[in-house]
Amino acid sequence: MGIVVQKYGGSSVADATSVKRVAQRIVATKKAGHDVVVVVSAMGDTTDELIDLANEVSPLPPARELDMLLTAGERISMAVLAMAIGNLGQEARSFTGSQAGVITDAEHGKAKIIDVTPGRIEKAIAEGAIAIVAGFQGVSQTTKDITTLGRGGSDTTAVALAAALHADVCEIYSDVDGIFTADPRIVPDARQIPQISYEETLEMAANGAKILHLRCVEYARRNDMPIHVRSSFSDKPGTWVLKAEDVTKDPTMEQAIISGVAHDRSEAKITVVGVPDQVGYAAAILKALGDAQINIDMIVQNVSAAATALTDISFTLPRADGQTAMTALARLKDQVGFERLQYDDSVGKVSIIGAGMRSAPGITARFFQALADANVNIAMISTSEIRISVVVAESQVENAVRAAHSAFDLGTDEVEAVVYGGTGR
Amino acid sequence: MGIVVQKYGGSSVADATSVKRVAQRIVATKKAGHDVVVVVSAMGDTTDELIDLANEVSPLPPARELDMLLTAGERISMAVLAMAIGNLGQEARSFTGSQAGVITDAEHGKAKIIDVTPGRIEKAIAEGAIAIVAGFQGVSQTTKDITTLGRGGSDTTAVALAAALHADVCEIYSDVDGIFTADPRIVPDARQIPQISYEETLEMAANGAKILHLRCVEYARRNDMPIHVRSSFSDKPGTWVLKAEDVTKDPTMEQAIISGVAHDRSEAKITVVGVPDQVGYAAAILKALGDAQINIDMIVQNVSAAATALTDISFTLPRADGQTAMTALARLKDQVGFERLQYDDSVGKVSIIGAGMRSAPGITARFFQALADANVNIAMISTSEIRISVVVAESQVENAVRAAHSAFDLGTDEVEAVVYGGTGR
Repeated sequence: MGIVVQKYGGSSVADATSVKRVAQRIVATKKAGHDVVVVVSAMGDTTDELIDLANEVSPLPPARELDMLLTAGERISMAVLAMAIGNLGQEARSFTGSQAGVITDAEHGKAKIIDVTPGRIEKAIAEGAIAIVAGFQGVSQTTKDITTLGRGGSDTTAVALAAALHADVCEIYSDVDGIFTADPRIVPDARQIPQISYEETLEMAANGAKILHLRCVEYARRNDMPIHVRSSFSDKPGTWVLKAEDVTKDPTMEQAIISGVAHDRSEAKITVVGVPDQVGYAAAILKALGDAQINIDMIVQNVSAAATALTDISFTLPRADGQTAMTALARLKDQVGFERLQYDDSVGKVSIIGAGMRSAPGITARFFQALADANVNIAMISTSEIRISVVVAESQVENAVRAAHSAFDLGTDEVEAVVYGGTGR
Repeated sequence: MGIVVQKYGGSSVADATSVKRVAQRIVATKKAGHDVVVVVSAMGDTTDELIDLANEVSPLPPARELDMLLTAGERISMAVLAMAIGNLGQEARSFTGSQAGVITDAEHGKAKIIDVTPGRIEKAIAEGAIAIVAGFQGVSQTTKDITTLGRGGSDTTAVALAAALHADVCEIYSDVDGIFTADPRIVPDARQIPQISYEETLEMAANGAKILHLRCVEYARRNDMPIHVRSSFSDKPGTWVLKAEDVTKDPTMEQAIISGVAHDRSEAKITVVGVPDQVGYAAAILKALGDAQINIDMIVQNVSAAATALTDISFTLPRADGQTAMTALARLKDQVGFERLQYDDSVGKVSIIGAGMRSAPGITARFFQALADANVNIAMISTSEIRISVVVAESQVENAVRAAHSAFDLGTDEVEAVVYGGTGR
């Protein structure tokens, strides 16, 4: 049998007991005849504790040194996990990102993987050992300094290693059973999705679903690496993320037009009121935001009232960037001559996602009718080929998710008792 | 000015406050015009905490993985120290043992340094940065695995780097002001030694003085690297460890025959009673101990009583090895035909050390008379060219140290309020 790459997040290795449980699962996979490569995050709160320590000595720690510090977290967890596996009678060898051949650019704190040269990993598994690799870290191709990959880095490490090793599958373990049709904390009859395409998963991740990070799914899609999202606390099959043509149509659902409903409460909305409707003014606004390193999400420009020749431009952005954006825009007031700025951080985004909507007419109407029936007012709309998103009042997010989930018959009869949590890094 | 290598032990970087204090000292050295390379141990109790964690998952952790785990300790302290220095406006770059070019053999947990290739350190200081290097660790030449150097490893890293960089001096910082003529906790008028030879320091270290480790002094002697032993809590000059011919004779002492009195309470004594006085029996006993990896220190064989043709063989060894040694010897009982074994772990060793004794007659008599006057009974004696050691009852160790210190006029008039502590690793 082939190579299986397994990734365990921080909550799966939070303490010695959890580490031992994970070790048993890894050994079981090895005994089933697979070559096993494991990518592991830092134990529990280690990363936060290390950041606290850094802040005790410096208000703005140099990025190179912060990476050196934080990578100690995975070093600890991988060594301890290797020991726990050794204690079960299987040889395990731990490797840093650098030793595992995870080559990155030199952007400390948010490095990108340039190449993976896993010679030492291949040697270890050829010799019968289980290889344990530190997630979230690599080594800069140019400076030879240690780097960290930023958010989603451990998942991305796992997928990148799986691709470089031509593994059969990359299993991503967390404390959740898989990907659901909606957040089960909001929709009690949400159903676990057995298989889903990369494209749909990307739209889910980009629109607030917290199971997999965008980067990791992108990497898997580019390399056609199957991901199996599973819980480290159970043996249930999870959710397979696959090429669209490999996804088996669910026989219990005649027309799986919509795969799931995602929501996101991390955005805010800014409206620039009274912009002169002239060429170049919208561009100036967007340039100012770009220069301030702010990624905007949706953007809507109203039709101008002919009498005034003034228009409003609204957009959404991460709430964390709200203040920076408002400051950057305020500086433009005289140049652009707009009337005023409005800032609203009590908004939420609800999205329906499904590859089936490409060929099914009337989806938008059905979605909007469901929202209307639930008395949810729509503030902004944006669509892609396989997604429709609306911005609503934050207080209406849960209503909107339930209405959409029900309108597209996504529910199951069994209500699962699961907690829909976030992944670490 | 040239390169200064500074080594700070775990007690000097126990918490954020200590790290900031050490950072100021380092920056002051840099501002005085030196190129500065710093070797640092793990913060405070970090190493013990990591060992506890390892023991939670495995009673006998694999040595390779234990090294991977423990090296996280220095990784944390060096990164945090680099941040604290950066906060004072100086650039500092941290380097793992591997990055600093500390090449070792593959003996995990007690690796020996084979070579030091500090190209990245030289580049960093050439570019004006302060280099911070993780002590106690290296990388195996053959396996490319991370190794630790065992006891005294951080001091040895510092001396080895200083030698490879052709530094002017290797400064070893701890919580003690320097090397003293005796332990000031036992001898209140013990005097700090301004300068002392490598050979005397080696004898002090080998006979219970806890300031410097044997390995580090050996390395310095072989490479003629001056060591300056200092406190990180004060600016006082410490003790210089130098080539014998470079040691300035203390003008206040007419004849510095004896440099210091060392004592050691870590040994036990085993006596094999009633060994047939025949060729090969003593050798068989020593071989059995060697096979059990036990280093014996002193050894004494009584003259046999002609009537019985039986003799007694006594030796001292580390108390920690007592049980192993007794087990190994008991197995020999029938083969050698000795009468019985005696084990005594309430013994201590007191040594006077001084290069001057080479040319001064009567030193042994003066030492033994002082012990007799203090009612100290001598159980065993051993000597080298520059040392005389006696084994006494543990309860008599302090008496014996004071008697010897006084007999050779080692005291000072000022009583220093210092704590004579041990170095970490």
